[in-house]
Amino acid sequence: MNLSKNLFRFALLVVLFLSQLPSHAEDGYRLWQRYDLLQNKDLLKQYRKSLGEVVVQGTSPTLTVVKDELEMGLSGLLGSKVTVSDQASKKGGLVVGTPTTSPLIKDLGLDQRLKDIGQEGFLLLSQKHKGNAYTVIAANSEKGVLYGTFHLLRLLQTQQSLEALNVTSSPKTKLRILNHWDNLDRTVERGYAGFSIWDWHKLPDYIDQRYLDYARANASIGINGTVLTNVNANSLVLTPEYLAKVKALADAFRPYGIKVYLTARFSSPIEIGKLKTADPLDPAVRAWWKSKVDEIYTYIPDFGGFTVKANSEGQPGPQNYKRSHADGANMLAEVLAPKGGIVMWRAFVYDNNVPDDRHKQAYTEFKPLDGTFQGNVLVQVKNGAIDFQPREPFHPLFGAMPKTPLMMEFQITQEYLGQGTHLAYLAPMFKETLAADTYAKGKGSTAGKIVDGSLDNHPISGMAGVSNIGNDRNWTSHPFGQANWYAFGRLAWDHELTSEGIAEEWIKMTFSNAPSQVAPIKQMMMGSREAVVNYMTPMGLHHLMGWSHHYGPGPWIKDKPRADWTSVYYHRADEKGIGFDRTKTGSNALSQYAPEVQAMWGNPATCPEEVLLWFHHVAWDAKTKSGRTLWDELCYRYSGGVDSVRAMQKTWNSLAGQVDKERYEQVKQYLDIQEKDARWWRDACLLYFQTFSKRPIPQELEKPQGTLEEYMKIEPKFAPGI
Amino acid sequence: MNLSKNLFRFALLVVLFLSQLPSHAEDGYRLWQRYDLLQNKDLLKQYRKSLGEVVVQGTSPTLTVVKDELEMGLSGLLGSKVTVSDQASKKGGLVVGTPTTSPLIKDLGLDQRLKDIGQEGFLLLSQKHKGNAYTVIAANSEKGVLYGTFHLLRLLQTQQSLEALNVTSSPKTKLRILNHWDNLDRTVERGYAGFSIWDWHKLPDYIDQRYLDYARANASIGINGTVLTNVNANSLVLTPEYLAKVKALADAFRPYGIKVYLTARFSSPIEIGKLKTADPLDPAVRAWWKSKVDEIYTYIPDFGGFTVKANSEGQPGPQNYKRSHADGANMLAEVLAPKGGIVMWRAFVYDNNVPDDRHKQAYTEFKPLDGTFQGNVLVQVKNGAIDFQPREPFHPLFGAMPKTPLMMEFQITQEYLGQGTHLAYLAPMFKETLAADTYAKGKGSTAGKIVDGSLDNHPISGMAGVSNIGNDRNWTSHPFGQANWYAFGRLAWDHELTSEGIAEEWIKMTFSNAPSQVAPIKQMMMGSREAVVNYMTPMGLHHLMGWSHHYGPGPWIKDKPRADWTSVYYHRADEKGIGFDRTKTGSNALSQYAPEVQAMWGNPATCPEEVLLWFHHVAWDAKTKSGRTLWDELCYRYSGGVDSVRAMQKTWNSLAGQVDKERYEQVKQYLDIQEKDARWWRDACLLYFQTFSKRPIPQELEKPQGTLEEYMKIEPKFAPGI
Repeated sequence: MNLSKNLFRFALLVVLFLSQLPSHAEDGYRLWQRYDLLQNKDLLKQYRKSLGEVVVQGTSPTLTVVKDELEMGLSGLLGSKVTVSDQASKKGGLVVGTPTTSPLIKDLGLDQRLKDIGQEGFLLLSQKHKGNAYTVIAANSEKGVLYGTFHLLRLLQTQQSLEALNVTSSPKTKLRILNHWDNLDRTVERGYAGFSIWDWHKLPDYIDQRYLDYARANASIGINGTVLTNVNANSLVLTPEYLAKVKALADAFRPYGIKVYLTARFSSPIEIGKLKTADPLDPAVRAWWKSKVDEIYTYIPDFGGFTVKANSEGQPGPQNYKRSHADGANMLAEVLAPKGGIVMWRAFVYDNNVPDDRHKQAYTEFKPLDGTFQGNVLVQVKNGAIDFQPREPFHPLFGAMPKTPLMMEFQITQEYLGQGTHLAYLAPMFKETLAADTYAKGKGSTAGKIVDGSLDNHPISGMAGVSNIGNDRNWTSHPFGQANWYAFGRLAWDHELTSEGIAEEWIKMTFSNAPSQVAPIKQMMMGSREAVVNYMTPMGLHHLMGWSHHYGPGPWIKDKPRADWTSVYYHRADEKGIGFDRTKTGSNALSQYAPEVQAMWGNPATCPEEVLLWFHHVAWDAKTKSGRTLWDELCYRYSGGVDSVRAMQKTWNSLAGQVDKERYEQVKQYLDIQEKDARWWRDACLLYFQTFSKRPIPQELEKPQGTLEEYMKIEPKFAPGI
Repeated sequence: MNLSKNLFRFALLVVLFLSQLPSHAEDGYRLWQRYDLLQNKDLLKQYRKSLGEVVVQGTSPTLTVVKDELEMGLSGLLGSKVTVSDQASKKGGLVVGTPTTSPLIKDLGLDQRLKDIGQEGFLLLSQKHKGNAYTVIAANSEKGVLYGTFHLLRLLQTQQSLEALNVTSSPKTKLRILNHWDNLDRTVERGYAGFSIWDWHKLPDYIDQRYLDYARANASIGINGTVLTNVNANSLVLTPEYLAKVKALADAFRPYGIKVYLTARFSSPIEIGKLKTADPLDPAVRAWWKSKVDEIYTYIPDFGGFTVKANSEGQPGPQNYKRSHADGANMLAEVLAPKGGIVMWRAFVYDNNVPDDRHKQAYTEFKPLDGTFQGNVLVQVKNGAIDFQPREPFHPLFGAMPKTPLMMEFQITQEYLGQGTHLAYLAPMFKETLAADTYAKGKGSTAGKIVDGSLDNHPISGMAGVSNIGNDRNWTSHPFGQANWYAFGRLAWDHELTSEGIAEEWIKMTFSNAPSQVAPIKQMMMGSREAVVNYMTPMGLHHLMGWSHHYGPGPWIKDKPRADWTSVYYHRADEKGIGFDRTKTGSNALSQYAPEVQAMWGNPATCPEEVLLWFHHVAWDAKTKSGRTLWDELCYRYSGGVDSVRAMQKTWNSLAGQVDKERYEQVKQYLDIQEKDARWWRDACLLYFQTFSKRPIPQELEKPQGTLEEYMKIEPKFAPGI
C-alpha cells in the first residue's frame, strides 16, 4: 500500500511538473473547459469514489459527445484514465442517460421527478439503489443529459462536493442563441477578436476542430442555437453553394444540441431570386420564400429559422413596399411554421428620417403591432432603446407588447465597452436589465419574466447574445471576454443566477480554485463595468464615442448624415447644462414606460443618478447626491473611472507568479491599454464639456494631459470591427 | 534501485498517458518546436548524462532567450526540470556562449576554429577539457550561440547521438528573410491561413505571445529578417503612428536575431510627405527620404531597410518620372547606407504595355542596369520568369547580372500550388532552382552559388520567402504548410541540404521519430509537388488558373485588361498543338540564357519534358518519351496527378491511430479536398484542351465527371488571399 501511495505521489509530482511546462502554454483556447488535474486531495478521493465507474448506455451522436466529454473531462480532472462503459459491472458509480436509452436510469424510478423538468432539464442526484450508491445524471432527452454532464463537470472543476447531490435544473428561456455578426468574407462587424471562425471557403469539406470546440463550449453553458451570419445580411448565404456549407456546420453542431439559424436579407427574392420585388404580400415573393425555405430544410432538417434586420440602417424591409413589420415577419413565419422554424424579427429600427428622439422609435413602430404576429415570431429587442451603451435604462418595449414573445438582445461583444482590450465583466449589466421592473403587470414584472415568457405565458421565449467570438487563439481577444460569453449562456439558462456566482464559477474553471486568486479576480470583475461607465459615459450620458469605429471618445461628433448618428444629439451640452430631456418638456420618451417608472425617472430628485442625464437636461450647478455640483460630480465620476482601472492594475499585479505567465502578461498589457484609454476618455470628454460648462476641473483631481485639439485629431486607422 | 526504476516507469506511463489527453490537443501551434518527452530510453540516458548541467554565462536579451529555450526544450524532452546556471558547479555538461561573454568558452581554446565560422556560425562539439567531458555550443556572436542552441535541440528532437559531436555550421546566405504580403487591415495578399498575425490596432501596447513564438520559430531555422508589410505597399506604415508599432515588433524580435524591414511605397513623398513629385532625382524628394530614414532609425536603430516593388502591376516607381530602377533604388540606398540599411529592389516588373513575352521583361529592363546599383542594393528575383508557377525554369536574370547581388525570391505561400488545402512540399521546387546550372561562368554556375554570392564574390547575399503564415491556430492552414516555412529557412541557411533530409528532420520534430511514421510521411511529401504539377500544369504548361483568386483551373481565361493576365496567352493551344514558342521562331526568350542552356532547352529533342511546353509549341501528335502522343501524354500526366493524390490518401489512411487524432483528421480532410480539386483541374483542363486537340481521352483513363460548361461556370466567392 505504501509503495502504491508513493508511486501515486510521484506520479502526481510528475504530472504537476508537466502541467507547468510552457510547451503547453495557457493560450486560452480551452476557455473554461480546462480539465487539469484537481489539486484538492480530499475531494479527489471523494470524486474517484463517486465516479469509480461511469456508465452511459446508448450510441447516438449526442450520447457519444457525452461519453467523450466525460472521458476527457474526468481523465484530466482525476488524473487517471477514465473509460466510459455501457454496462454496469461493479456496484455504484456514475450513471448517465434517459429512461428511454438507459435501462439503468429507467430502473431508478425517477419518472415523477423527470416529469417536471421539461425537454432540456436534467436531474443530478446522489441516489441509493438496491444498496449501492449512485451519482445519477438523468433527463428526458439526450440534450438534457448533455447539459447535466457539463453541470457535473462544472461541479468538479469548481471543487464542489458530490455527496448528497439533489440538483434539478431546467432552462428558464427556451431559445438561447448567439448572434454572429460575421460576414461571408470573414470580417466581423463589431468583432474585436480577429476574424470570423467560419471559414466559408473551406466549407463544406473541411470541418475545423474549432467548430467542434465552439459547440462544446456553448453546450457547456446551455446555448442551443447560433445565427451564423451578420444581421446586415448577404443573400448569397441562401444560395445552394452556401447552404451546403451551412449544412456542414449544422451537422457538426447537431450532436451538441445546437441549431443553426441564418439572417435573411429581405430583398433576397430580388437579389438571388430574380424577382422584381420583395413585397411580402406579393404572391410570387411568398412563393419564392416558401420554395427557398423548403430547399433549406432539404439541407438542414432541423433548421432553426431566420433573424431579420429590416428597415433599419439602410437594410431593406417590408416598409419599402408600405407594408408593416408584421407583414414581413409573418410572411416568413408562415412558411417556416410547418417545418418548426421561427422568425426573430429585430426591433432595432429607425426611419430614414431622423425622429424627434431615436429612443422612441422602436416602441412607436412595434407597440401597435402587438397581437398581429404569427405564433412563431419573436420580436428581438435590444436591452436598451439606443444601442448597447455602457448603461441604458431598459427598453420601453419590455412590458409594452404582452401578446408577443419578446426576445432579449444583449451585446456580448464590447462595441461600446472597450472592444477587445478593456476588462468589462458584463453580467452585472445583463442582470441590470433582466432585473429591471417594467411594472407591466404591477410590481415585480421584471424584464427577465417578460423575456422568459412567464409573465405573459408565452410558449416560446428567447435570449440572443451578439457574439464576441473570433479566430484569435483565445477566442475573445481579452481573456476576460470569455467571461461574458460564459455569463450570457448561464443567464440565458437562468436569469436569476447572480453575477458574483457566475464570476466565481468562471474564475475557478478558467484560472484557479485558490481563494488567493478567486477573491481578487472576482473583485476586479465585479467593479469593471461600472468603471467603464464612469470613464466613458457616467450619469446617463450615452453615445459619445468616436465616429464609425466606436473606439475612443468623440463627444464632439456632429454634422453627420443623420443627427442621431452624432454625439451632440445625445448629450445636448450647452451653457446651461447637459443631458437629453426625455420628460414631457422634452421628447417625452418617458411616456413609453409604465406610470410607476415614469414617476421614478421623471423627477430628477428620484431619478437614479446613473440615468439622470438620459432623461434630464440638468444645470451645471445643480446639486447632486454627493453634495457636489453636477459639473464637479461629472469630473469626479470620470476620474473615478480611471482610478478604478488603476485599482484593477494593482490587484492584477498582486497575482504575479500565481496566474500562469502567458495570461498574466496578456491581461497586464491589456490593463495598461485600458488605463491609457480611460485617461483618454476622461480627458477628452471633460475638456470638451468644459467648453460649455466654463467651470474648472476640481483642483484635487488629475489634470488632462493633452489639449482638446489634440484629442479631436486622434483618428485610429484600420480599427477592427467596422 | 528497483523501486526507483518502478517509479520511473510508472511516471513515464503517466506522462505518456497525459501527453495523449485531448485537453492538450495537437493543434499545430507549436510547429516543429514540440519538446515532448523523448521515447528512446537509451538516448534519454545519454542525453541526461551529456546535458547533466547546463551553463550559459551572460545576461543579454539574446542569451536570456537561449537560456529560456534550453530550459523549456530540455525540460520537456528529458522529462525533468532543467535549470540553466551561470557557473559550472559539477564537472562536464553543456556549456554555451561566446568567448567574450563566457570565461568557460574562452577557456576551451576554440579561437582558431571560431575564426572560420563568421558572425552567425556556430560550433557544436563534444570536447574533453581538464579531464571532463563537455558538450559545447560556441560562437563569435550571441546570434551564433542562438543558432547553435536550436541546432542542439534539433539533434535531440530527431534523436541523434550527442557523442563525438563535431559540427561547424555557418549560413551560406547572409540575409534570410520572410516577406509578409500583409496589409494594414490584416488581410494578407495570397494568404491562406487566416489573416495577418500583425494586430496593428493593438500595437505598440500589446505584444502578442504569438510574436515571440514567431520569432522563436524563425530563429530556430536561421531566419534573420522579416519584411512586415505587403510589397503592394501602403505609405501609412512610414508615419510616426505606425513606426511606433513597427518599433514594438522590432524590439520583440531583436533578441531572436531578427531584423525588421518595411516595404516602401515609391510615392510616399507625395502621399504622406505632401510633395508634388516622387521623382528620385528631385532634391526635395531625396531630402524627404533622407529625413524619413533618419526618423525610422530613431525608432529602430537596427532597422534592416526596404523592399520595393516599383513600376509593376500598377505600383508607382521611378519610371513614372522617366528614371531607371537604379535611380530609384540608389536614392533609397544612399540614405540607408550610413545607417547600415539595405534596399531589396524587386525585379518582378512589367510594363503597362503588354510585352511580346512577359518572360523577357525583367531581363530586358534589369540586365542593362548591372553595375549601376549602389553596394547596399540587392535585386530580388523570383525563382522563375513568370510568377511562382508549380514549375518554372530558372529566371534568366540569374547569371546575367554578375556585378549585382541577386536575391532569390521564393513563394512559400502556395498561391498556385493549392493554397491552404493542398499538400505540396516545396523543398524540391526550391532546390530545383537553386541547383539549376546557369552556365554563367561555365558548368557548375548554379543559381544557388549566384544567390549566396560565392560565384561573383558579393559581400551581401540574400534569400526571401513569401510567407505562408497567418493567424490560423497552426499558422499555415495545412499542417504540411509548416514544412515549407521550415524548408525555406533551412535552405536559406544552406542550399545544399537535401529535400529528403529536411523533410526527415521536420517530420521527426513535427510528428514522430517512429520509422513507421517517418517513412510514409516522407514518401508523401517527396512526391507531392510533382503531383501538383501534374494535375495543374504538366509538361511546362503555366498560368492556367482561375481569374483573380487563382484557386482552381481557368485555362479558358481570355479577354482581360492585359493579354498577359490571361491563360490563353500562355498555353497558346490551337488546332495544331499547344505551348509557348520561346525559341527564335517565337518570342526568343530563350536567348536570355547562356548558350549551353539555350542548346538544351531550344531543341525539343533535348528539352526536358518537364518544361517542354514552356519553350515550344508542340503538335498534338508529336511523340513523347513515353512513346505516347503529346495529347495522350498530357492526359496521362493529368491523370497521374490525381492518382498521386489518391496514393497520398492511402498512405495517410494507413497512419490512422499513429498520428494524433486532431492532425490526422485535419490532413485527411485536406487530402479529400485535394483529391477533389485534382480531379477538377484534370477534368477542366483536359475538356478545355480537347476543344483544340479534338482527340479522345485514352480509353483506359478515368473520364471527366462534369462538362466543360459546368467547370467554366464555377466561380468561388470570397476566396481568400485576394
